[in-house]
Amino acid sequence: MPQVNHGCERVLINANLITLDPQRDGAYGVMERAALLIADGRIAAIRSMDEWPATTLNTDGIEVVDLAGQWISPGFVDCHTHLVFAGNRAAEFEQRLLGVPYETIARQGGGILSTVRATRQAEVEELVAAARPRLLALMREGVTTIEIKSGYGLTLEDEIKLLRAARQLTADMPVNVSLTLLAAHAIPPEFQGKADDYVDMICQTLIPLVSEEKLADAVDVFCEGIAFSPAQCERVFQAAQTHGLAIKGHTEQLSLLGGTELVARYQGWSADHVEYLDEAGVAAMAEAGTVSVLLPGAFYFLREKTLPPIELLRKYRVPMAVATDFNPGTSPLASIRLMMNMACTLFRLTPEESLRGVTQHAATALGRSGQLGMLREGMQADLLVWNIRHPAELAYEFGVSQPTLRFWKGRLSEHEPDSKSI
Amino acid sequence: MPQVNHGCERVLINANLITLDPQRDGAYGVMERAALLIADGRIAAIRSMDEWPATTLNTDGIEVVDLAGQWISPGFVDCHTHLVFAGNRAAEFEQRLLGVPYETIARQGGGILSTVRATRQAEVEELVAAARPRLLALMREGVTTIEIKSGYGLTLEDEIKLLRAARQLTADMPVNVSLTLLAAHAIPPEFQGKADDYVDMICQTLIPLVSEEKLADAVDVFCEGIAFSPAQCERVFQAAQTHGLAIKGHTEQLSLLGGTELVARYQGWSADHVEYLDEAGVAAMAEAGTVSVLLPGAFYFLREKTLPPIELLRKYRVPMAVATDFNPGTSPLASIRLMMNMACTLFRLTPEESLRGVTQHAATALGRSGQLGMLREGMQADLLVWNIRHPAELAYEFGVSQPTLRFWKGRLSEHEPDSKSI
Ligand SMILES: [Zn+2]
Ligand SMILES: [Zn+2]
Repeated sequence: MPQVNHGCERVLINANLITLDPQRDGAYGVMERAALLIADGRIAAIRSMDEWPATTLNTDGIEVVDLAGQWISPGFVDCHTHLVFAGNRAAEFEQRLLGVPYETIARQGGGILSTVRATRQAEVEELVAAARPRLLALMREGVTTIEIKSGYGLTLEDEIKLLRAARQLTADMPVNVSLTLLAAHAIPPEFQGKADDYVDMICQTLIPLVSEEKLADAVDVFCEGIAFSPAQCERVFQAAQTHGLAIKGHTEQLSLLGGTELVARYQGWSADHVEYLDEAGVAAMAEAGTVSVLLPGAFYFLREKTLPPIELLRKYRVPMAVATDFNPGTSPLASIRLMMNMACTLFRLTPEESLRGVTQHAATALGRSGQLGMLREGMQADLLVWNIRHPAELAYEFGVSQPTLRFWKGRLSEHEPDSKSI
Repeated sequence: MPQVNHGCERVLINANLITLDPQRDGAYGVMERAALLIADGRIAAIRSMDEWPATTLNTDGIEVVDLAGQWISPGFVDCHTHLVFAGNRAAEFEQRLLGVPYETIARQGGGILSTVRATRQAEVEELVAAARPRLLALMREGVTTIEIKSGYGLTLEDEIKLLRAARQLTADMPVNVSLTLLAAHAIPPEFQGKADDYVDMICQTLIPLVSEEKLADAVDVFCEGIAFSPAQCERVFQAAQTHGLAIKGHTEQLSLLGGTELVARYQGWSADHVEYLDEAGVAAMAEAGTVSVLLPGAFYFLREKTLPPIELLRKYRVPMAVATDFNPGTSPLASIRLMMNMACTLFRLTPEESLRGVTQHAATALGRSGQLGMLREGMQADLLVWNIRHPAELAYEFGVSQPTLRFWKGRLSEHEPDSKSI
């Protein structure tokens, strides 16, 4: 490994770039034998080594890092997570596998409401401490941008507490963060049978406050028979639109309710899950420029059988992002690389589609397409260096390769002092 | 984290032990608030903290490590891997997902024979270098014992080269190794149409030599329509028996041929895969004391639908081990923790079964049941320390928790100097 310092300006030479830039021809937008100049936290220049041999570089004050044929990809963007919560659902997982009926577990206070109960009881600091190893695990794999949703508070105070915890968690970390208010995640126990009253609170009090205090970038809803109806979701979207928050939805995960078309009608950033989506919904997404976010971890963990409409999404050129959906109930899997493999293995995405899914299209799903998710001059210098022979390896093999270097805003990540390794 | 030195004798106090010892009652054989004394690389004593408070310990020359309520499990045993090979099948993975027919890929020299070709061309040192990151990935997760099979050489010289590479790979590593001759993995190209001649070579030349030079502990076969017939496998087993090598088989993975019963008839250590196994085969395993090795990674990667006969294996009390089957064609997944989760999610094992599968029963599958795979006085001190609240977490959550300490033969593992982390 080359020695790398922590200055702000450097050039990475003899690199193979996985640019993912659609303006470049060929699979993955690959540019072999390139030099990439970082300045002011951005990609200042990309040149062929032929045009720009190291010998003609003015290296005054610029550190030259010879990557000797290693590959550079954009940093990974995990655009859908529920990373911040308290409590632990391992015992419930065990009970189900021991054959305890779901009803019994629910009667004992299990399921999502156990997470809600624990999260309500936790202080901000406890939430941050619980989420920190989850975030570090993702960052070790190369995540440089993360989306975090609320949704386990389900009261005004607790949803705000959760968003503040997510902000505090990421404040001193080398990672970009996008925060999402998912108050419409589940009907709170004290609003059973009067979900509309809870939606009133979300629309009239919570969204205005979150917008005013800039606590989140977007709102999200769970549009499903077991959660909120399209009419209720639309009210949330109207309030979000009024208050300048972006829109997205958990839609068509378990049935076809029309939530995706609703998200598209409001020019939403993304519709997520979409296993049960039909052609009309896909067409609506294409028309609106809404990204589909595929969540193979939840599909795997719930042993679902209905695949998202991949062929239709391709046909209508709807961008497909891929994310972990990390959460304690349906995807306790803190690995974006595993999601890349699962997107290929379970959903039959190509390795290139799965890589674009966790970079280019995931950035678009967070409204950051101009800044993140590809290697192009002017983009933020969130970069991963890989000792691989082909970009397809990133989706194919799991567990072996890690980034050999990780840059966030052009700065090399420090080692985590308390991490252990063999 | 407590500071821990590298001496040979120490006592770990205030620990919760996941002993997995069948002599202890209760789930996981848990013993809470315990002290575990390590001496001469073994577990010298296990005591309750009540019986043996730290104040009455003679700490002269003994280091006391206060684990403050952390959990100790046995080190993981990955009892089925194909870790050593050259070449790379990422491009083939990509081609398949791009829709290239399997026949075209095979005609281009893809599939297992591409791995065979690359492995034959590689020197021992290249094989060691290629396998090293795979082994380190498994060890970082807590693997302290690994089985490695040959099977990509398919000539006398190349099978031996592969076994020597596996020996060299592990020689200076803090890991126990079990080596397996899997010459009967595929019919080599030069023996197409005359597989019996290749089996002659295995039985008459290779097995005697491997036994004489102590290059392996066991032989393995791939008993399947696309590989070797039961009659051919039986000849291999007879030669192995004659030369004092243990017996195991890849059996009933894709069809029911009777390979498992054959393994049982020869008192084999394990029958692996066994998705298509019937009740007679399960009964034969129970009778013989043969372990079933479940390989959910290959099941996942190949998108198989036929589950192993878990209920029958439980009914007949056939031990179920769980392993990675790490290999480039059907399970490029270097994670024993992922296999634990997949054993639960895909095969519906309980978390306790999946944990016993990668410890207690995996040790039995390698003929090491008296020495490895549980916490009991006299056993080798291969230990993992976990900052968890319940043993079920080890199977439930993936990617977040790593062992906070790892002991092999009582010695704390050194950090790998070139590993990178955030
Ligand atoms: Zn979600
Ligand atoms: Zn195998």
